[in-house]
Amino acid sequence: MTNKIFLSESEAPTHWYNVVADMPNPPTPPLGPDGQPIGPDALAAIFPEALIEQEMSAERWIPIPEAVQEALRIWRPTPLIRARRLEQALGTPARIYYKNESVSPAGSHKLNTAVAQAYYNQQAGIRRLATETGAGQWGCSLALAGQLFGIEVRVYMVKVSYHQKPYRRSLMQTWGAEVFASPTEMTASGRKLLALDPDSPGSLGAAISEAVEEAAGRADTNYALGSVLNHVLLHQTVIGLEAKKQLEMIGEYPDVVYAPCGGGSNFGGIAFPFFADKAAGREIELVAVEPTSCPTLTRGIYAYDFGDAIGLTPLTKMYTLGHDFMPPGIHAGGLRYHGDSALVSQLYHEGLLSAVAIPQLETFEAGVLFARSEGIVPAPESTHAIAAAIREARRCTESGEAKSLLLNLSGHGYFDMASYDAYFAGQLQNYDYPEAAIQAALSHLPLGR
Amino acid sequence: MTNKIFLSESEAPTHWYNVVADMPNPPTPPLGPDGQPIGPDALAAIFPEALIEQEMSAERWIPIPEAVQEALRIWRPTPLIRARRLEQALGTPARIYYKNESVSPAGSHKLNTAVAQAYYNQQAGIRRLATETGAGQWGCSLALAGQLFGIEVRVYMVKVSYHQKPYRRSLMQTWGAEVFASPTEMTASGRKLLALDPDSPGSLGAAISEAVEEAAGRADTNYALGSVLNHVLLHQTVIGLEAKKQLEMIGEYPDVVYAPCGGGSNFGGIAFPFFADKAAGREIELVAVEPTSCPTLTRGIYAYDFGDAIGLTPLTKMYTLGHDFMPPGIHAGGLRYHGDSALVSQLYHEGLLSAVAIPQLETFEAGVLFARSEGIVPAPESTHAIAAAIREARRCTESGEAKSLLLNLSGHGYFDMASYDAYFAGQLQNYDYPEAAIQAALSHLPLGR
Repeated sequence: MTNKIFLSESEAPTHWYNVVADMPNPPTPPLGPDGQPIGPDALAAIFPEALIEQEMSAERWIPIPEAVQEALRIWRPTPLIRARRLEQALGTPARIYYKNESVSPAGSHKLNTAVAQAYYNQQAGIRRLATETGAGQWGCSLALAGQLFGIEVRVYMVKVSYHQKPYRRSLMQTWGAEVFASPTEMTASGRKLLALDPDSPGSLGAAISEAVEEAAGRADTNYALGSVLNHVLLHQTVIGLEAKKQLEMIGEYPDVVYAPCGGGSNFGGIAFPFFADKAAGREIELVAVEPTSCPTLTRGIYAYDFGDAIGLTPLTKMYTLGHDFMPPGIHAGGLRYHGDSALVSQLYHEGLLSAVAIPQLETFEAGVLFARSEGIVPAPESTHAIAAAIREARRCTESGEAKSLLLNLSGHGYFDMASYDAYFAGQLQNYDYPEAAIQAALSHLPLGR
Repeated sequence: MTNKIFLSESEAPTHWYNVVADMPNPPTPPLGPDGQPIGPDALAAIFPEALIEQEMSAERWIPIPEAVQEALRIWRPTPLIRARRLEQALGTPARIYYKNESVSPAGSHKLNTAVAQAYYNQQAGIRRLATETGAGQWGCSLALAGQLFGIEVRVYMVKVSYHQKPYRRSLMQTWGAEVFASPTEMTASGRKLLALDPDSPGSLGAAISEAVEEAAGRADTNYALGSVLNHVLLHQTVIGLEAKKQLEMIGEYPDVVYAPCGGGSNFGGIAFPFFADKAAGREIELVAVEPTSCPTLTRGIYAYDFGDAIGLTPLTKMYTLGHDFMPPGIHAGGLRYHGDSALVSQLYHEGLLSAVAIPQLETFEAGVLFARSEGIVPAPESTHAIAAAIREARRCTESGEAKSLLLNLSGHGYFDMASYDAYFAGQLQNYDYPEAAIQAALSHLPLGR
């Protein structure tokens, strides 16, 4: 019995799929702080023209430049794997498949967009990229991508993570990036924050401010973001495009697709190519899985809000918990985002995508079961998709239905073993919010509800 | 241009290759402490019969049980990759290929033999396996293999590593193993060592004593070893068998094969299937790469010696630096072994294999160049093979020869980032020994020279 379905490099996607072409309604425009739509110019200080074009494009298929395809071939196509041992452990008639994005050298799907962004910046004559990173998945991906395309990378890493996750920092440095514990003395934003609190542990919001300030202030330097934006989701569609072909090779089509959802990039990446079929009338359920501790889609509202915590970005119409919502320090750091991709949000609002929120302990239980049956230790983010698929597989055990389930294993957990330690030591907990707390967090939306 | 050559699961090896069948002379027998050959019975207290048979077998092909093949299919066949970006970085006309054993869930080739050993022990009715681990690669592999075959695994982890490498410990626990910091109070060996020094940091020799004591004293418990023994090298030949097929698929055959060599299992695993061709007259060089800090093949002598530091094991004829040789705490912990596999030693002694020793700093330099060109951060052990291949590729640059080089990427370095940190911080050094020091270490051989 075959477990792994490989695509040859010659069968890899040559175009990205742009979901905008198949959406029933055009995307909502981003707005400036005054509530007026902004144009491409507003982004030109920190992004290259090619990426801004992709951000605004309605073309269904966008060619992947040959140099980007060549970089993707370092680890892509990624395997699609039938999780037979997990199925056996669950005693389910369901067929469970996972797309193994953990095989990228950076350990997650983030490298898919990092190589594309590094390439377009190189083509635009940019010599340096500045970015922020929290847990470090994105910083690592951009570090390696920068190395591949001859671009210097400077990463502002949230100070508390810089000290707690030293090996992600080492990894970025091994790939040649400069890494700074944010807030730093190097930017006005950093100095301002340090003046307020010399012992500040830093925050993603603060690190974004430092990176954007550096990019905006230097002609040779741009900014790169690892999720949320349309062009990032576009680059991630290689995941779903490959998975569709791989399932076709064995005469299979999924009933349900699951992916973890923080900013939305790995969910959009695997789900959008299947959405194209759904838009054409095919029955399929596409499920974004989020933590109950940051339940953006399941408990937030659909409104214009800032993308960052401080309010420096344009306003985006999205599901949000309020830009100053502060989720607890859960171990799936990549899912601790108050908002969501505009594209995912709009399709969810229109009832075309589903969402489910899962408590932390259930996700780790799922992660351990997966590790003990399939071998790979999943990233805490990825365990969310696994947990949701396990719920459905168990329902199939009861109903006898033999559903076909596809999940995105967005990354491995080999840099997250401290989280598993904490789980085994009984130090993790579930989080839930009374409705009043959610409503309070939503009271500061810049344009109201 | 294709970078990665995949084998489908249906093309995976169905038999292990036993090099004994093609050796010009029969293997030297293991001896008891009295200098007399020992029989299979001497091993029956701690190994199952099937593995003892393999240890003694002269059959060329040994079938891989279906259940072991199925476990191997979790991650095998592993990809063979053309290192085009490394070639470009070196400006070499050489073609460099690497067999990527780092894709195993445990992160290295060790899992190849772990699943086989767990299977045969399960078949023999054994319920528990005891083993030792230093850096943790082997302990992790046996933990996962035990989980897959329903066998409890107890790992005696050298105390200093237990505290220095907490994430390898977490990984073993995630896969369900019990892990103890050795020396423990649980065994007579451990209590004896703690009585001498309550703060003992432990050693591999001490951890072996504890694991063997537990296995010898309990009928339901056996012992498992991760390298050195004939059956371990046998199980590793899937590496070379796959690599040969993959190279054939693109009409390629290597001029030279490189692998890191500590106990000899990953070297034997990739080299022996090519040795079969060499024995049949084909020209190929098979190079074991070791650290200058533990130069077993290049500076040791060929003599009978103990396999462990304390002298509990049978005597094996092998290249050795003396069983009480204490190499410095280099970062390629898997290569810190005073002896070598009997099979590798005998073939090397007969001039059929080559060896080279490389200083630590050159190996890290090679590892960083590899990480920055090919993406994957190699384990410090694997960097030895990379460094040796780079030396040859550079010679090709000068000579204009377009040699075909194959190396074994035995594992990834994502749990070894502290070593890379130390390298970047300038804290690593090279080690070399005056000849007198080597000769002194060789003065305690149990049967003399």
